[in-house]
Amino acid sequence: MRIAMGIEYHGGVFCGWQSQPNRRGVQDALESAIKAIAQHSVRVHAAGRTDTGVHALMQVVHFETTASRPVTAWVRGVNAHLPAEVRVLWAHEVSPDFHARFSAIQRSYQYILINQAQPSAISHQTVGWYHQPLSLDSMQQAIAYLRGEHDFSAFRASECQAKSPVKNLAVANVRQTGAYFIFDFSANAFLHHQVRNMIGALIYVGAGRYSPEFIKLLLKSKDRTQSPPTFSPHGLYLSGVSYDEHWGLPSTHRQLSFV
Amino acid sequence: MRIAMGIEYHGGVFCGWQSQPNRRGVQDALESAIKAIAQHSVRVHAAGRTDTGVHALMQVVHFETTASRPVTAWVRGVNAHLPAEVRVLWAHEVSPDFHARFSAIQRSYQYILINQAQPSAISHQTVGWYHQPLSLDSMQQAIAYLRGEHDFSAFRASECQAKSPVKNLAVANVRQTGAYFIFDFSANAFLHHQVRNMIGALIYVGAGRYSPEFIKLLLKSKDRTQSPPTFSPHGLYLSGVSYDEHWGLPSTHRQLSFV
Repeated sequence: MRIAMGIEYHGGVFCGWQSQPNRRGVQDALESAIKAIAQHSVRVHAAGRTDTGVHALMQVVHFETTASRPVTAWVRGVNAHLPAEVRVLWAHEVSPDFHARFSAIQRSYQYILINQAQPSAISHQTVGWYHQPLSLDSMQQAIAYLRGEHDFSAFRASECQAKSPVKNLAVANVRQTGAYFIFDFSANAFLHHQVRNMIGALIYVGAGRYSPEFIKLLLKSKDRTQSPPTFSPHGLYLSGVSYDEHWGLPSTHRQLSFV
Repeated sequence: MRIAMGIEYHGGVFCGWQSQPNRRGVQDALESAIKAIAQHSVRVHAAGRTDTGVHALMQVVHFETTASRPVTAWVRGVNAHLPAEVRVLWAHEVSPDFHARFSAIQRSYQYILINQAQPSAISHQTVGWYHQPLSLDSMQQAIAYLRGEHDFSAFRASECQAKSPVKNLAVANVRQTGAYFIFDFSANAFLHHQVRNMIGALIYVGAGRYSPEFIKLLLKSKDRTQSPPTFSPHGLYLSGVSYDEHWGLPSTHRQLSFV
């Protein structure tokens, strides 16, 4: 049978999602823990790969198993075999044609940035940091140019393996809460480093190094070499994955909480 | 001259505030970093000692130095020699009769708890966790009994060195935001483990194991052996220290913003 899971993880202690020769990928930890419950090896497929340092409030995965276990075993049993930095939030039996990656119709990311003179000690692995004052208004003007269907080549890492650089960025917003800026993005798919490259460019605009129209020109140029540097992974969270309702999954979206 | 500093730290990587033989106290890291700027050894005094795992949004410290340095050197220079888990937020020259501990008139702590079936992966070191549903109403009734001047012996660790168990708890509140409970406490001083022991007792009330009046009886008993277990340090933050205005310090209070 096929089991889907919702997963949360802290990216700071892993070398990204993907299985690594040193076994320090989130996938390695999860496959080991599931094996302990299933009593056979499994291969876990994720909705989206995340880089080293990037967190997941909600990653969706699936795997095939011949083991018949109650849902609580796939949640609490697997959690008992996971390091504290990874948690199974839910498990759900799905039909054999569900695929965490290929059935996904939209991915969502949040980026949280602290804008103050000194970086945060408590959040040094969980929040991005920029020291010069940022203008919310300029970044809101700039981010509007990113919304919609575009060729995002200017924000694409050289090692990106996507077939097409054209993606539909349905959501692209930024808001401010005290010293924090929170960015929300949702798209059918993202190019490698796309969010961190967009954040890098938006911060240059927010700091006044470029006008908001720079983002429009950058998009049009399709030229990564014109673009500001890739920003830190620490503030980046995979926050949700959308699937068609007919799969009957539990909630596949979460948000950062402000208290 | 005497320099006061506001300090933030992540308690997860340190063996508490106090200097340790293994040099893994926050104090050790700070004294080493200040020495690199002052070019002589210093002894740092803190407003309050924190245990292993306990964080500081705002710890206030002072030290004596013969070195004359601009304030930026005490902030940015010292930060350049600190691990990422400790940050100097501000530095300020104070008169020689200021003492971070003895001049303090009130300490404030925040405790943040996530109340859900599974612990959080991302916040496993920065948020306390309780799995059974908690009643805000019961905890609000119970916490009211703690407010004011009381003998807090029932919440005192056996190794506590305070001269008197009588403290004045001026602030004791709990509120809820989604799955999170946020507790605020301010007092002239706290006994060793007092906040974590109060949290342990309040959670037993919130979970329905005792009525809110249990807290009243517990206080009156002055008997630690009647009290529920000391709760986890992970959700505990030293959030501020109050001093008389005449010292002219920068802000000595901070609040949690998000988790």
